[in-house]
Amino acid sequence: MKKIEVAILGATGTVGQKFVRLLENHPTLVVAELVASERSAGKSYAHAVVWKQETPIPTDVAGIKVKDLSAPLSSRILFSGLDSSVAGEAETAFAAAGHTVISNSSNHRMDAQVPLIIPEINPDHFQLVKKQVGPGAIITNSNCSTMFLAMVLAPLDAKFGVEAVQVTTMQAISGAGYPGVASMDILGNVIPYIGNEEEKLEEEVAKILGRLNDDHVDVHPMTVSAQCNRVAVFDGHMEAVSVRFSQSASVEEITKSLREFRGMPQERSLPTAPAHPVVVMDEMDRPQPARDVWVENGMAAVVGRIRPCNVLDFKMMVLGHNTVRGAAGAAILNAEAYQALGYLS
Amino acid sequence: MKKIEVAILGATGTVGQKFVRLLENHPTLVVAELVASERSAGKSYAHAVVWKQETPIPTDVAGIKVKDLSAPLSSRILFSGLDSSVAGEAETAFAAAGHTVISNSSNHRMDAQVPLIIPEINPDHFQLVKKQVGPGAIITNSNCSTMFLAMVLAPLDAKFGVEAVQVTTMQAISGAGYPGVASMDILGNVIPYIGNEEEKLEEEVAKILGRLNDDHVDVHPMTVSAQCNRVAVFDGHMEAVSVRFSQSASVEEITKSLREFRGMPQERSLPTAPAHPVVVMDEMDRPQPARDVWVENGMAAVVGRIRPCNVLDFKMMVLGHNTVRGAAGAAILNAEAYQALGYLS
Amino acid sequence: MKKIEVAILGATGTVGQKFVRLLENHPTLVVAELVASERSAGKSYAHAVVWKQETPIPTDVAGIKVKDLSAPLSSRILFSGLDSSVAGEAETAFAAAGHTVISNSSNHRMDAQVPLIIPEINPDHFQLVKKQVGPGAIITNSNCSTMFLAMVLAPLDAKFGVEAVQVTTMQAISGAGYPGVASMDILGNVIPYIGNEEEKLEEEVAKILGRLNDDHVDVHPMTVSAQCNRVAVFDGHMEAVSVRFSQSASVEEITKSLREFRGMPQERSLPTAPAHPVVVMDEMDRPQPARDVWVENGMAAVVGRIRPCNVLDFKMMVLGHNTVRGAAGAAILNAEAYQALGYLS
Amino acid sequence: MKKIEVAILGATGTVGQKFVRLLENHPTLVVAELVASERSAGKSYAHAVVWKQETPIPTDVAGIKVKDLSAPLSSRILFSGLDSSVAGEAETAFAAAGHTVISNSSNHRMDAQVPLIIPEINPDHFQLVKKQVGPGAIITNSNCSTMFLAMVLAPLDAKFGVEAVQVTTMQAISGAGYPGVASMDILGNVIPYIGNEEEKLEEEVAKILGRLNDDHVDVHPMTVSAQCNRVAVFDGHMEAVSVRFSQSASVEEITKSLREFRGMPQERSLPTAPAHPVVVMDEMDRPQPARDVWVENGMAAVVGRIRPCNVLDFKMMVLGHNTVRGAAGAAILNAEAYQALGYLS
Repeated sequence: MKKIEVAILGATGTVGQKFVRLLENHPTLVVAELVASERSAGKSYAHAVVWKQETPIPTDVAGIKVKDLSAPLSSRILFSGLDSSVAGEAETAFAAAGHTVISNSSNHRMDAQVPLIIPEINPDHFQLVKKQVGPGAIITNSNCSTMFLAMVLAPLDAKFGVEAVQVTTMQAISGAGYPGVASMDILGNVIPYIGNEEEKLEEEVAKILGRLNDDHVDVHPMTVSAQCNRVAVFDGHMEAVSVRFSQSASVEEITKSLREFRGMPQERSLPTAPAHPVVVMDEMDRPQPARDVWVENGMAAVVGRIRPCNVLDFKMMVLGHNTVRGAAGAAILNAEAYQALGYLS
Repeated sequence: MKKIEVAILGATGTVGQKFVRLLENHPTLVVAELVASERSAGKSYAHAVVWKQETPIPTDVAGIKVKDLSAPLSSRILFSGLDSSVAGEAETAFAAAGHTVISNSSNHRMDAQVPLIIPEINPDHFQLVKKQVGPGAIITNSNCSTMFLAMVLAPLDAKFGVEAVQVTTMQAISGAGYPGVASMDILGNVIPYIGNEEEKLEEEVAKILGRLNDDHVDVHPMTVSAQCNRVAVFDGHMEAVSVRFSQSASVEEITKSLREFRGMPQERSLPTAPAHPVVVMDEMDRPQPARDVWVENGMAAVVGRIRPCNVLDFKMMVLGHNTVRGAAGAAILNAEAYQALGYLS
Repeated sequence: MKKIEVAILGATGTVGQKFVRLLENHPTLVVAELVASERSAGKSYAHAVVWKQETPIPTDVAGIKVKDLSAPLSSRILFSGLDSSVAGEAETAFAAAGHTVISNSSNHRMDAQVPLIIPEINPDHFQLVKKQVGPGAIITNSNCSTMFLAMVLAPLDAKFGVEAVQVTTMQAISGAGYPGVASMDILGNVIPYIGNEEEKLEEEVAKILGRLNDDHVDVHPMTVSAQCNRVAVFDGHMEAVSVRFSQSASVEEITKSLREFRGMPQERSLPTAPAHPVVVMDEMDRPQPARDVWVENGMAAVVGRIRPCNVLDFKMMVLGHNTVRGAAGAAILNAEAYQALGYLS
Repeated sequence: MKKIEVAILGATGTVGQKFVRLLENHPTLVVAELVASERSAGKSYAHAVVWKQETPIPTDVAGIKVKDLSAPLSSRILFSGLDSSVAGEAETAFAAAGHTVISNSSNHRMDAQVPLIIPEINPDHFQLVKKQVGPGAIITNSNCSTMFLAMVLAPLDAKFGVEAVQVTTMQAISGAGYPGVASMDILGNVIPYIGNEEEKLEEEVAKILGRLNDDHVDVHPMTVSAQCNRVAVFDGHMEAVSVRFSQSASVEEITKSLREFRGMPQERSLPTAPAHPVVVMDEMDRPQPARDVWVENGMAAVVGRIRPCNVLDFKMMVLGHNTVRGAAGAAILNAEAYQALGYLS
């Protein structure tokens, strides 16, 4: 079977690099085009990029000549890791030109007719693309910190009804891109503020868990309150979560429903899908970002310390790999799900 | 005026060292005796201790010969930084022998007749000592993470009535003593578990804010839920706090009541008292442990980001110096308050 | 072919755990016995160990019952990661009992009749075992910081004659074992002292590069001066090296001789051998421990910044994985080489 | 006595901020003017700066309106913390306009008629300013890593004759300014390269220790070889130093000559002068940046582990505060020395 050619928008950035890395040896997608700023345009990718991944630049990508945002593209699917300062207009234009834009950028996430997808949770929301005007489409994944919260809340909501959620995050420096967080700001420190992060977390989860209603999504009525912090961790966002349910639950029932959670990516064995989207650890001091971030190749939400909460009902720790399942990996899984569901044919 | 002689129990430990450091040049207290384990007994303090403070060992303390726990002491006040494995019995024995034990250890904090004091909040609880049997007394300060939460909740409870509190802590490594946290466990990592810390936080704050009722304290009916984490910070515990009030409030009113908070340490200008027990910062990304932990010489709770909470009513960040106001400094302020209120005469 | 059964001495320690991890799926060796302190004896390995590796405990090892040091062993090869406080006597006793002890401990390294082996460099030194009394043998690998220096000096000495070496190390915390370095000592800090490390570095490299002379090794006459520091890095020792040669050299010739370096592990394709024992990077700011420590699966010395030195002749940076090629991996490669050279038959 | 008014060039940068902080309450100098980029010009300093110092912006400086580089200045002394991209021309122009430019920038350090001063070592080099054309003058201090090496070598050269020096540095992130080193590059890592740092170290020390010869300096004939690394330390450069002397020496003699080292700043009790420009610690694991960087208020070179070297003659560890004595503090001490020697009258 011939692989589908994809382009990466914002290919030299942190998310763009992760797209390149995660797509190496992908069974159905192949990187054909790379798009970056004018400064990089015309150079080979190997010369344009300051490569920060753990493995070398894939050989077949290193020599691709980088295009700028104004160049016409031939790829069917465009993965967008564009900076939000340019993503809005660029993605709209590419969709109008007929491309399927699978975006990690935040600009269009809350647009009424743009699906905000976690394929284990709401693959039916893909149908929103039919309401988008023009020949192409824009599909988005959530913010990195939203991802792991939503993945944990979805099975709990199905069983116990989520009414309210308190979440305090401890987020990794790689979430801010490169150069991102200055070392003088974070070495031996905690920064109790990440611009717009709390707002994204609070509103995105309600859309993802919302119900598709013809041409829009009725957002889930849960209330979410987030406090977001940056800590001196390389990869892996930690989230201290408390939840109030509408129905009674127990630690055992919660654990069971998280461990049994599966969705269409697992049923269809999508290439990038984790076998278990949520992994529950039993050790009392886990998960930890430095030890557990690569569970399920970074594609799972890892949960620990499920216990009763004095104020709401239950609390737990959640961990996820912010640049894999929290960014590029999420978009790739979205593309795989979109294709598997027949939208590309 | 002649200074009161004090002994330090557990003098070579992290808290013991901080006692030595903070008592240097104290106007009314002077270190006369040092007590540590048998291994240290008989050595000069300078030889017994692995000194980890920022300033050198005070000259007049360096030469004091360390005693072991079984030695009789002559000092009126004993500051206890003993490990909880020995503090329980030892403090009881010293109180029975007539000493005033001002303890930072957790063993007796929740005993019905032992006052758990923050002198800005509940100096009337000192009266519990009259119910203690024997000639001496045991007085305790709270756990480090409790301290800053209680200091912030006290003025808010007085104005708005605190009903429920969610707190997620990000605690410094110095809180675990020395050698304490292994570097392999915390470098680039977060540990989502600190033994007994959540329980202490949840129960101590209710006793401190409780009402003295003759021979015991009626604990405050608020519910508290804590999630405690260790982060790669040297000094300074951060706490992400959400509060539900019984009465309506606003960000401005909360800020005002925190800034205006004063207690008897301020009224009587106790030597170690901060001018402002709670300091509110306006910057959107503060407080930060690496920058703000020494505000008010480490004796204040530093607050920032006061804002509405979707789930409870308001949320904010709180920071405090865990080994100063959160440990040795708290005990010293307790001693100063106890003396100022005439209990020692 | 039946795999050779091996025991791991000190199996619950940092080096012991790395033995377990690196021997998982080994083609010719299989872990059959695990030995640790009395505290662990009788427990299954999974219960006895505080596992700190990146991958889970291998299933077939998790259930092995741990023995104590006094128990008789049946394995032919014993890998020793024992603490130096017990390794000396224990290894002697096991060798006397007929076992081949492949040790990472320092106790016997400098014994006249104990080979100190890097199989790319001095496999002929294995012959020293014939001079050891008794039926068994003791074979050692070098200290972690010695390893990478020796691997780089060997090909340079062969071509240009090494006369003098200055080395300043920046060593990872994992080199001190667990719990090892206290976080309060190393967070945001450098410790300019590692007990006995400089002495080991200075004397071991001269033995490894020495010439076998019947029943002993004539040490290499080079002078070595080491300054050893601990830095806040998890895995990977960095070494700033300056060398004086007896013959003229150039950056190009040095680079070439390092890149072309091969030994018997490469010629015989030993299972754990790196394809290239020394890898030279061209980037001006490499190698870096956080990025390059896993080059060649952690079994190579990684070199960069080869350039003239104003005081000696040339200088360069050297990096190696201290717990892989610098410890357990070195011992395993020694066992493979020993077997390949026919000593076990 | 009326204080001399000074301007700070590059006032919003890391070095500029340190000038502001160190000049607070200075007995003879007062900040009157602040100069920064066009982006800051016209704003009050408090609004223009992203303040990163440990203490608040001095009140009398916070309200000063920032000027841009083209504005005429009235201050007699200009402290320059300008970026090297603009410092060259700007400093020349200000000197031509009659100002005394005391610069921390590297641009003019090696100019034949520009004194490169450490006032404990070579205050006679100030005379070079008489050869500068025009009414003003440019005076420089050394690079941060040069400073501590030169301060240690000067008394040793006087006693034992320095012939050759090997130095490997482990430098703090604050040396790169703000935002400077990206956290993703340095957390848990070492970067073995700092642009131009090795060259500066190698050539500056020879000029500082050189002999004034009428209109120029005859550089010291010692050879210096440097290897410079960035480590995850906030403040404080560590240097592993080896030295070859022309005359015999002992550890005791070296220690004594370092401890007895004094210069004109000490003789004249200059306000910013350390009592002891070189402090020698006896502990075997010191100095350490996180513990010892504030010795002598950050104005001393702190030395430890003096011991014989197998390759050269002696080796030792050296530590200094890179943004105090290594930058702004050096310039301020230069200004004080220049004034004390009568050059300003």
